[in-house]
Amino acid sequence: MENIRQFVGFLMAAALLGPLSVVIVLTWVLQWRKGLAWDLGLLEFNWHPVLSTIGFILIHGFALIVYRLPWTWNFSKLPMKYIHAGLNILTFVLMIISFVAVFDFHNSKSIPNMYSLHSWIGLAAVTMYALQIVLGLCTFLLPCTPTFIKAFYMSIHVFAGLFIFGMAIATAEMGITEKLIFTLRSGSNITLSYSQSPPEAILVNTLGVFILVFGGCIFWIATRPEWKRPPDHMKENIGSEEGSIVNKMNVFVETSTDVLEAQQE
Amino acid sequence: MENIRQFVGFLMAAALLGPLSVVIVLTWVLQWRKGLAWDLGLLEFNWHPVLSTIGFILIHGFALIVYRLPWTWNFSKLPMKYIHAGLNILTFVLMIISFVAVFDFHNSKSIPNMYSLHSWIGLAAVTMYALQIVLGLCTFLLPCTPTFIKAFYMSIHVFAGLFIFGMAIATAEMGITEKLIFTLRSGSNITLSYSQSPPEAILVNTLGVFILVFGGCIFWIATRPEWKRPPDHMKENIGSEEGSIVNKMNVFVETSTDVLEAQQE
Repeated sequence: MENIRQFVGFLMAAALLGPLSVVIVLTWVLQWRKGLAWDLGLLEFNWHPVLSTIGFILIHGFALIVYRLPWTWNFSKLPMKYIHAGLNILTFVLMIISFVAVFDFHNSKSIPNMYSLHSWIGLAAVTMYALQIVLGLCTFLLPCTPTFIKAFYMSIHVFAGLFIFGMAIATAEMGITEKLIFTLRSGSNITLSYSQSPPEAILVNTLGVFILVFGGCIFWIATRPEWKRPPDHMKENIGSEEGSIVNKMNVFVETSTDVLEAQQE
Repeated sequence: MENIRQFVGFLMAAALLGPLSVVIVLTWVLQWRKGLAWDLGLLEFNWHPVLSTIGFILIHGFALIVYRLPWTWNFSKLPMKYIHAGLNILTFVLMIISFVAVFDFHNSKSIPNMYSLHSWIGLAAVTMYALQIVLGLCTFLLPCTPTFIKAFYMSIHVFAGLFIFGMAIATAEMGITEKLIFTLRSGSNITLSYSQSPPEAILVNTLGVFILVFGGCIFWIATRPEWKRPPDHMKENIGSEEGSIVNKMNVFVETSTDVLEAQQE
């Protein structure tokens, strides 16, 4: 693999920022927002940011880059496909629970559902995610799917995966914004308002920054052409020799194009 | 160009949704938020969403895809570089005015600056944008820059451009969320609260959706390998023949890899 040090650097940054974001969201709800429970009230609502960060940000992010781990390239692709699908299905389950938590809370407090831009884009993202999982399973794990459909759908699947992840990040940022405005009100005796930047606001803004930078690391890893799983390591596949040749040509052409373009700049 | 109809479809969608977003933001501030003025008050603040939508979303978005317009491929790349740089510099100037509007408003009302996640990520995005413009000008428009620096920086420049545009979209979504919560309060006699989904909330949520879908069109156009400006159209450049060969090989390898991978799925 080219630039393996850079790859490991970005992977370590993601492996640090993702779990750290989960630690921050847990600190937030446990220390400042009275903890977690399944009580139809505010403590049930608190599962919403926690599960969304664990699922739609952390696990979802790593699900996008499992094929790019070079240590797995000597093995068959099939178990990696199961891991990719499994992580995404796990994320989807967590998001369903996360949605139930917020709907329960809204309903018990007679707050309307689905009025905010956060809810609109969040629901759109999870709906597209469900469709992406179903189409992905049908296309890439059903043995009977014709090759031309796989070839046609691949670039859409990859783009949609990254776009939905981007929607998840934007939705998280809106959710943080909403929650900090709603909970930190200047009228209350208990807390300073958001605009006075109390420690809670600083911490949760930092969570928003960490989620964004984590997303940046995932996007960078997922879009470098030189870090794509090469077809030539598909040992059990009869196409491995052609794969090796095409992959070498690919790297050659990629490099030649870059140099040529740079000369023309 | 491959899939020219699809390209035109996405371009038309972007050319519809982008200007429509500007129409909606203007309708919002002119009809519901008392209009525009440079008065250090709320009417000056209104320039902030208007200029940010025109600059950081609309013009910025089209600046990212100028090289991909196939009708320009028969001409030299240099004027397109000037257009790309010019549109980005224009966006940056609009964003400076947009920032002045919001700082003026905050200062006149003694509202602290830079406390929200919207402001943190927005300022980070515009700062990175300024750096991106300066580095882009130095690398791709200064004739003395060595080729290896251009080749090294190209992929970073492209990724950073798309990432900053993604940050702009996320910041816009947070800004919409903030402004709707702050202005639509249940305590007021004049307006319904955000949670009661008055027409203003529906319209401005729709603006958020349009901005996201506009962004999706730009990302799709900007990331299709087959829609990349081919080096062989650099007529005045001595490298044009090699460019033509490398480009044809590129398309061949791209197609071969897709088919091979699909067979291995």
